[in-house]
Amino acid sequence: MRNDKSGIDRLLSNRVSWLADSGPEDDIAISSRIRLARNIEKTPFPMAASVEILENTLSIIMHAVRKSASFPDVIEFELEKVSDLERRLLLERRLISRELLACKKGSGLSVSKDETFAVMINEEDHLRIQAMKPGFQLHEVWSDINGIDDALSREIPYAFDSEIGFLTSCPTNIGTGMRASVMLHLPGLALSGQINAVVHGVSKLGLAVRGIFGEGSDNLGNLFQVSNQSTLGESEEQIIDKLINVIRQIINHEKNARQTLLEKKQNFLLNHVGRAYGILKHAYTISSEETLNSLSALRLGVDMGMFSSVDIHVVNELFLTVQPAHLQKYAMRELESADREIYRAALVREKLRNIDSRN
Amino acid sequence: MRNDKSGIDRLLSNRVSWLADSGPEDDIAISSRIRLARNIEKTPFPMAASVEILENTLSIIMHAVRKSASFPDVIEFELEKVSDLERRLLLERRLISRELLACKKGSGLSVSKDETFAVMINEEDHLRIQAMKPGFQLHEVWSDINGIDDALSREIPYAFDSEIGFLTSCPTNIGTGMRASVMLHLPGLALSGQINAVVHGVSKLGLAVRGIFGEGSDNLGNLFQVSNQSTLGESEEQIIDKLINVIRQIINHEKNARQTLLEKKQNFLLNHVGRAYGILKHAYTISSEETLNSLSALRLGVDMGMFSSVDIHVVNELFLTVQPAHLQKYAMRELESADREIYRAALVREKLRNIDSRN
Repeated sequence: MRNDKSGIDRLLSNRVSWLADSGPEDDIAISSRIRLARNIEKTPFPMAASVEILENTLSIIMHAVRKSASFPDVIEFELEKVSDLERRLLLERRLISRELLACKKGSGLSVSKDETFAVMINEEDHLRIQAMKPGFQLHEVWSDINGIDDALSREIPYAFDSEIGFLTSCPTNIGTGMRASVMLHLPGLALSGQINAVVHGVSKLGLAVRGIFGEGSDNLGNLFQVSNQSTLGESEEQIIDKLINVIRQIINHEKNARQTLLEKKQNFLLNHVGRAYGILKHAYTISSEETLNSLSALRLGVDMGMFSSVDIHVVNELFLTVQPAHLQKYAMRELESADREIYRAALVREKLRNIDSRN
Repeated sequence: MRNDKSGIDRLLSNRVSWLADSGPEDDIAISSRIRLARNIEKTPFPMAASVEILENTLSIIMHAVRKSASFPDVIEFELEKVSDLERRLLLERRLISRELLACKKGSGLSVSKDETFAVMINEEDHLRIQAMKPGFQLHEVWSDINGIDDALSREIPYAFDSEIGFLTSCPTNIGTGMRASVMLHLPGLALSGQINAVVHGVSKLGLAVRGIFGEGSDNLGNLFQVSNQSTLGESEEQIIDKLINVIRQIINHEKNARQTLLEKKQNFLLNHVGRAYGILKHAYTISSEETLNSLSALRLGVDMGMFSSVDIHVVNELFLTVQPAHLQKYAMRELESADREIYRAALVREKLRNIDSRN
């Protein structure tokens, strides 16, 4: 029934809906995601559970996912049975957390073929249910995941307290157990030097902002995730509405920044985008950092109409596939850093082969 | 009879034969040039001559050039009557020397429409006769310029001493009065770190090597001119044969260096060439230095078959037309440095529009 090797290959051979499909405002908002932390009542949290309990929990949850029929074409992974490379592939695809990179007995993943839905099993909590959609559509994601949550709750008795809500392993998730986030591409704010002010302002509103690639201030690729910090004291809808309001403002700031660059610094902008495109299309070795920043510039150029025949989702997918584990899968072997730079350049050239610039 | 304004425009609208036409070994040897220093007997050298004498000399020489009929379609310039910009254009086209940039009464230029032949008048000597051809063909250039020299000598009584030869204003030119040179493109030696050793070795053989753009060690564009130093004590043919022997060795070194790069550092080479091509084709602002070095890489790529539809002479001509005076002529106005970078990028994109890379 379970075939993890072919599971990875099935994932890789299918389009990742949240990157490859269109969504509202996806010139700036790449994807919307909600995760729910859930636990089974009267069962120790994974960090306190024995291997027997973990394996039993895994079995119960996978069964519930299959039975609830809320996922189309579910693919299952018992993580201790897959290779390091495959775990890193799942991490890069945002299907498992960094914590599950370490081989952890009894942990697993049930994911829909198009990667729209996933349940991570026996990470910090028994279940981390995840739903993702392309573009800016948190209400729709909430509606989806709420349905899945309801279906699963009919199979699994959740740990729930009528006063405080869902019980979670870490107190920061208690209550709704919900973390909603939107991935934003903000090259306009970055190029015009406003990004730090925006990040600071958003943080003061009680939301979290972090770069997608790497920690701290380097902001590779100008990709940011904005999410709620608080899970307690408000309903899911209230949390989501607040997040949507702030993100709408960030999107407007980004649009204004792009417009200003176009009007006042057109050559700077064209040069920034053109050079990045030239490098991506013709380099034979390229670092991860240069690739992510060049892809960001290319994506900006596509959004601004500088390229005639580009599907922006090709660029979105490249953000994923140039990462180390995906590159090694592409090369079909382990790669040293220097070889990665060669394969990365080859992959990018291949994917951009049919793209023409208008100039 | 003389129309200097249209003279410049006639030059600019015609192909520069030594850049635009094919010649032997022009993958490495861009052009061959010989200059002869000649003076009129019993007449003070230009630096000691009165304005009346200079103007008289100018008239005599221009007349002799026309009468000797050795130049097809001669175009004449009285340099004090042309603008600063036009003098700089002539300098960039290698038709006059830096000394004639300063407005100097009585100095002039007679040049064939295709720029194969030129006589610079009242620079350091009364006449500096120049002949140029594409590729590596000093014997042919010598044959041409020798014929022109003979024809002019029938119109102009040269200052000549039967023991030491032609008399010149500066003692370093005395004897043959000949300076023969070949312009070499040596990116292989530069990329493999051998160029300084080659320059040093050639200097020890009594020849001069200098970068075409800028003085000293920066070697922009990897273009070098190799010429004889000595003009005395040997016949013209002996000097030329010695020069040819050394240059043939340099060309072989360059070929070996390219082959070694291709065999041992293929990705390095492809990356170097590909990135330069990407930048040239897509940048919207570019410095002179980056342009010359990128053109050098592109030219190497063309020579090595990396571009399917490129005429190498388009690249040769770009080395000329990206220079400041040519750029300002292209823009039809004076340009500040920042504007030059924008126009330079626009010019390069335009010229490379129809070039496709094979990858």
